[in-house]
Amino acid sequence: MSDPRERRARVALCLLAEPGDPRMTRLVHRHGAEHVYRRLLAERDLEGLETDVVTRLRGVDPDEHLDRARRLGIRFVAPGDEEWPNTLDDLADVPNVAERGGVPLGLWVRGPLRLDALAHAVAVVGSRSATTYGTQVAGAIAETLALAGHPVVSGAAYGIDVAAHLGALNAGGTSVAVLACGADRVYPAAHRRLLRHLAEHGAVVSEGPLGSAPMRVRFLSRNRLIAALSVSTVVVEAALRSGALNTANWASTLNRQVCGVPGPVTSAPSEGVHQLIRRGATLVTRGEEVVELSSASGAALLEEPRGEVRPRDALSLRETQVLDAVPHTRRAPADSIAQAAGMAEAEVAATLEALRARGLVAAAPSGWCLAGAARR
Amino acid sequence: MSDPRERRARVALCLLAEPGDPRMTRLVHRHGAEHVYRRLLAERDLEGLETDVVTRLRGVDPDEHLDRARRLGIRFVAPGDEEWPNTLDDLADVPNVAERGGVPLGLWVRGPLRLDALAHAVAVVGSRSATTYGTQVAGAIAETLALAGHPVVSGAAYGIDVAAHLGALNAGGTSVAVLACGADRVYPAAHRRLLRHLAEHGAVVSEGPLGSAPMRVRFLSRNRLIAALSVSTVVVEAALRSGALNTANWASTLNRQVCGVPGPVTSAPSEGVHQLIRRGATLVTRGEEVVELSSASGAALLEEPRGEVRPRDALSLRETQVLDAVPHTRRAPADSIAQAAGMAEAEVAATLEALRARGLVAAAPSGWCLAGAARR
Repeated sequence: MSDPRERRARVALCLLAEPGDPRMTRLVHRHGAEHVYRRLLAERDLEGLETDVVTRLRGVDPDEHLDRARRLGIRFVAPGDEEWPNTLDDLADVPNVAERGGVPLGLWVRGPLRLDALAHAVAVVGSRSATTYGTQVAGAIAETLALAGHPVVSGAAYGIDVAAHLGALNAGGTSVAVLACGADRVYPAAHRRLLRHLAEHGAVVSEGPLGSAPMRVRFLSRNRLIAALSVSTVVVEAALRSGALNTANWASTLNRQVCGVPGPVTSAPSEGVHQLIRRGATLVTRGEEVVELSSASGAALLEEPRGEVRPRDALSLRETQVLDAVPHTRRAPADSIAQAAGMAEAEVAATLEALRARGLVAAAPSGWCLAGAARR
Repeated sequence: MSDPRERRARVALCLLAEPGDPRMTRLVHRHGAEHVYRRLLAERDLEGLETDVVTRLRGVDPDEHLDRARRLGIRFVAPGDEEWPNTLDDLADVPNVAERGGVPLGLWVRGPLRLDALAHAVAVVGSRSATTYGTQVAGAIAETLALAGHPVVSGAAYGIDVAAHLGALNAGGTSVAVLACGADRVYPAAHRRLLRHLAEHGAVVSEGPLGSAPMRVRFLSRNRLIAALSVSTVVVEAALRSGALNTANWASTLNRQVCGVPGPVTSAPSEGVHQLIRRGATLVTRGEEVVELSSASGAALLEEPRGEVRPRDALSLRETQVLDAVPHTRRAPADSIAQAAGMAEAEVAATLEALRARGLVAAAPSGWCLAGAARR
């Protein structure tokens, strides 16, 4: 468990600053939360932070906030806690993306899933205005991930997010929703049941304090957490302006795997995914491919799909050449087949016998003809 | 024009050997056609070639064959001819793929298009059992290529091949069909009109002599010509066993661009394309992207699609932060907005004025509210 005073200061700073304010996350990472909090209380300026937080400073009561969280069944998980997911520490090293960044001061968590159990988690994200195709594929991929033991991480939006959670839950897996608003809030309201279910069986996570509203800029900070908590990020559908591309961008900055599920080039919700793949993301078509990419090296090697195997596959090129020369609609003698195949008569005669043994040609006094699988 | 005796020998050898027999193409490339033909006539064995061709050797009459071709309006184009497409010479350097390979002995050509005009040609290939989606996209890509001055190269099969030719022709462009059978044959029979049109306005090309049948193994040799004649090969739809993947494989071996058009991951005719992209082919979504890849470096640089530009795009993150803090359903005074935004009151007041100047917020005695584009 982290130091109680440091922990209390983290809660206070979390109430003061916007989630992912890069000045705050950097200062705390360097000097510790207590030091930063004390300086702010003393109205000492820190890179302009004091000016920003001064209006909130009066009302901050970290103990009261922690009490309220406890009553709601929400815990505060901070760096140093046993449950802290170390993957988030990678955020300390990355350059500032979209003016938000850094290791979060802590996470507000509701639900039985421990965050340190997310080591192999995979993010499945995408468009709110997803198509039936997109939601079906997202659900199927999440299901496969869950069956392979990978927790699924996503937001709680309409479309791909909810399809991913439902896919994981259907398969009896675990799922985590990372919110842009407080972990106590229900947004969108239509997902009340889903969020309750996740809070009972998985986890609902937020960087922002209780009650904080789902403002647009907070989605940018939230996206970095989805990317950082996951070994890979799969984007299923994303229009050119989708927030899912911001998550993918974070995943790429964090050296996580970025996967994209293609769709018809005529479908706007796939445009952003195609752009991602053109920029280097891995095209994936099914959950197994994501599992392969998200597992320890070589642990889940996948055999590539090869299409059905046909009797002709076993033939050499020269055998095929003879088979091709057997006419489709009539019988032909061996010498005319040899002529058509452009091969010596002796070899053709022997090859025809070999093909007969495989059931691909048949012989009659009037000549050879195709048989069995070769007739189809 | 190539040496007449060498040329006559090339025609003879073309009548003797299977198209793309790697022994034949290699021997001719090294020693010249006349040398090889003379040795075969003397029944001297050459890597087993003599045994293969002996049955055909008796009936070979290159002069008669050239006469027949002339009467049909078909010309023989050989290395050394002014019209010879030098791109085919790249085939001399590549390892043997699928037991067929090498520079063709010559090409039988019907149609006004000169083969040396194919310098920027692009192959558009794919499944015979294409979907409506695939044929529409193939047609649209071929149209864009034609409008940008790129001749289109394909086979003459059902599905993507025919859609590609029609797309190019609709746009008033040129198109070339490379056949696995003789250039005088119509295969499939349903494409009689298309082949006649290409013979009148573009070109119909074959490596095999007049009358030769469209045997399966000949498609493998044919595919290398489609790939070699083109600076890029675009695969639109291809099941896992599609011959179009063989063409793509040749293109890649020849260091040509390989492009794949994705489709739904639930569509079998897109499976092969997705596999190609996973192995390194470039995902393309429209003809302009193919034009960019198929032009001299930098000649057709494409602006990436960016999605619609919205009024919020012009705002800084801090301006967005203030705008986000203006409530949706009621009016709020500046100090409460500052509190919600986590920013100093003075900056928020100034920002609100700037947002008002952009028409995004409105002021009233009771406070600020969203306006204009920010309300949507």
